[in-house]
Amino acid sequence: MARTDIGSGKSVSGKEAQQVAGAGTPPVGTPAGMRRINQRAVLELLRRAGPATRPQVAKETGLSKPTVSQALLALESAGLARPTGHTSTGTGRSAVLYEADPTAGYVLGLDIGRERLRAAVADLGRTTVARRDVRNTARSATALVASVGRLATELVAEAGLAQSDIVVRVLGSPGVADPAKRCFRHAPNLPGWGRAGLLDDLEQALGPDLLVENDANLTAVGEWESGAARGASVVGCVTIGTGVGMGLMVDGRVFRGATGAAGEIGYLPYGRTRATDEPAEPPARGHLEEATAAQSVVRGARELGLGTAKSAREVFRLAREGDEVAQRVVAAEADRLAYTVASVAAVVDPDLIVLGGGVGTAADLLLDQIDRALRSFTPLVPTVVPGELGDDGVLTGAISVGLRAAERLVFERRVGAA
Amino acid sequence: MARTDIGSGKSVSGKEAQQVAGAGTPPVGTPAGMRRINQRAVLELLRRAGPATRPQVAKETGLSKPTVSQALLALESAGLARPTGHTSTGTGRSAVLYEADPTAGYVLGLDIGRERLRAAVADLGRTTVARRDVRNTARSATALVASVGRLATELVAEAGLAQSDIVVRVLGSPGVADPAKRCFRHAPNLPGWGRAGLLDDLEQALGPDLLVENDANLTAVGEWESGAARGASVVGCVTIGTGVGMGLMVDGRVFRGATGAAGEIGYLPYGRTRATDEPAEPPARGHLEEATAAQSVVRGARELGLGTAKSAREVFRLAREGDEVAQRVVAAEADRLAYTVASVAAVVDPDLIVLGGGVGTAADLLLDQIDRALRSFTPLVPTVVPGELGDDGVLTGAISVGLRAAERLVFERRVGAA
Repeated sequence: MARTDIGSGKSVSGKEAQQVAGAGTPPVGTPAGMRRINQRAVLELLRRAGPATRPQVAKETGLSKPTVSQALLALESAGLARPTGHTSTGTGRSAVLYEADPTAGYVLGLDIGRERLRAAVADLGRTTVARRDVRNTARSATALVASVGRLATELVAEAGLAQSDIVVRVLGSPGVADPAKRCFRHAPNLPGWGRAGLLDDLEQALGPDLLVENDANLTAVGEWESGAARGASVVGCVTIGTGVGMGLMVDGRVFRGATGAAGEIGYLPYGRTRATDEPAEPPARGHLEEATAAQSVVRGARELGLGTAKSAREVFRLAREGDEVAQRVVAAEADRLAYTVASVAAVVDPDLIVLGGGVGTAADLLLDQIDRALRSFTPLVPTVVPGELGDDGVLTGAISVGLRAAERLVFERRVGAA
Repeated sequence: MARTDIGSGKSVSGKEAQQVAGAGTPPVGTPAGMRRINQRAVLELLRRAGPATRPQVAKETGLSKPTVSQALLALESAGLARPTGHTSTGTGRSAVLYEADPTAGYVLGLDIGRERLRAAVADLGRTTVARRDVRNTARSATALVASVGRLATELVAEAGLAQSDIVVRVLGSPGVADPAKRCFRHAPNLPGWGRAGLLDDLEQALGPDLLVENDANLTAVGEWESGAARGASVVGCVTIGTGVGMGLMVDGRVFRGATGAAGEIGYLPYGRTRATDEPAEPPARGHLEEATAAQSVVRGARELGLGTAKSAREVFRLAREGDEVAQRVVAAEADRLAYTVASVAAVVDPDLIVLGGGVGTAADLLLDQIDRALRSFTPLVPTVVPGELGDDGVLTGAISVGLRAAERLVFERRVGAA
């Protein structure tokens, strides 16, 4: 079975890598190798630029028309490209338009949170063909793995697909995947998630060609590719839900740090200035996470007498309606976010901070207060904006990462390495 | 006049760039272009691998012996290589050994601190040929620029060199060079350093081909190339002197952030958890810098009744001798360093933190306490080690950065672009 890959951009599967390097692959420079390179170039063009005619493809790729015809024929018979209509210029002959076949493969994205499990299946054209969002009622790792497996199986069936149609599966989770112990470190909100071999259980439940990635990193990828962070050079995407996290993108790539824990801002030493006299363990959730997590908004609201608030969202709603206690709770949350942004700014000097996930939806309440607090903390003040993807951030990033890997894999499986 | 370059690794001088691209340069692919590429390859080999004979050079570069002979002749007549002796194998004929001529050019490194000005001149073989270390008595930017210019002039004369022998000048300073205003931002400890046009004044005083760089970044380069940080993938080099700063190296390159302010850890929101009720400015030096800077060790010592201590170094000495008040001051400094390391770890997950500059010399007092405090703050605990370069960190990094640029420039000036 293929080994689960950790992080995006690496080869997805040992089996696949073997296949690519195997005897069936013609070396670069041979006619067969050149044909594959040309087919790949034609397919890439159709994927990036949309439907095109033979002459348009020839013009854009610089290939000769016979070469393009041959490549399109091969791509069509491999199920990777298809005719999609005709040009209608009014004058002259109409020409056949070709497009990359979006049904050549599918990607499954999964977002594992303590409260919700979200899943989506998208085709290679990025169209979502099935989507589910369910409560996470599992209270053990075994139960959660089973829930996730069931969700995936049902969703693929609901999309009318077979498991073999799914080319890549991408799972976003809190914590840092540990390639040696094959589990997630630093995910205290998911009981049992740090158990050695957990990634093998997930692979067993979900199938091969599984990529796992930190959820905040996936949100950052999503916001960078198709949300509020487009084009930023150094951007931190701060997410607050059950836990707090940050995905850091530098020049369009996830910055992971030495052990994959970059952006684990729940561990910022919020409010600490001195070591305790007794040897002490830090709270498992981290000092900042203890103080900032959504639960604390609710707890803060209750402590201030707002006994009815059951969720952060409700506290935000009450604040919008003018409830003064709720507004004080929101102000405290903004101060903690300002502390976070100030810390991140002093270390990596981002040009942009995106408030991703649920907290982004309260940007109307938070931004002014964050800005005021930030300016009292530091002269290094990056732009802070709400994310554009809301609760879909992790799934959007998962699909993006999955598509990148799937495009390559589908070509290699159906045509060969180019 | 050449424009001052900011940061390492870019072209040093507009004039030079023009010269390189000018009519005198044969295009790549012509025989003259190929000869230069071969000469460059031979020179690179001599620089990296040390003295070698013609046959050794031919073997290592893969070039033919006649090509090597021709290249060595050209390099010798350009003053870039020279014979340095003969092999003496006992049997057979002895062969001439060639080396890269270290006197083909010189680099000037400058370390501008509030308390000290340090300067060194090194040849292309990295041998220091002159070195000075003086008190900074200037209390205005104008006076400081004049002091720096005088120091550089005297040092070059002391080395028996002409100004024209200096190929590249590299100046390390606190703060972040601002390419638009041509000054240093965030350098509150150097009065007037934020004045628009300051970089032009420095260039006027020092000469052309000037690179300016943040001092903590240069220390990090120095420790990474020839100190405690060799081979680390993500390393923060924390320096504490009059101010606090950090140079961050990722895969051997300085990580600058979006505006060059990455690592300005003096602005960490140390001890802040809430915005002030009144709109307030942060202290110009930053909250952490206020609390951590060396001055505070002295201030802390005085507040605790250690009235005689005049420098951080003296407080450290007293602590080593068992003075309990001094030990409490050191413990507080260690707690602040632990706060700093914990913050950096949560954001970028380094595998190594180097305590550079003066504070590194107190590692014997600090490391255990830092480790204990760190473990009470966070589970993300990178290795913390003292720097190996002490007060020479900035100069070592400046010479490294300068040599990289100078090697290219000297070849281009004497032979042409390859």
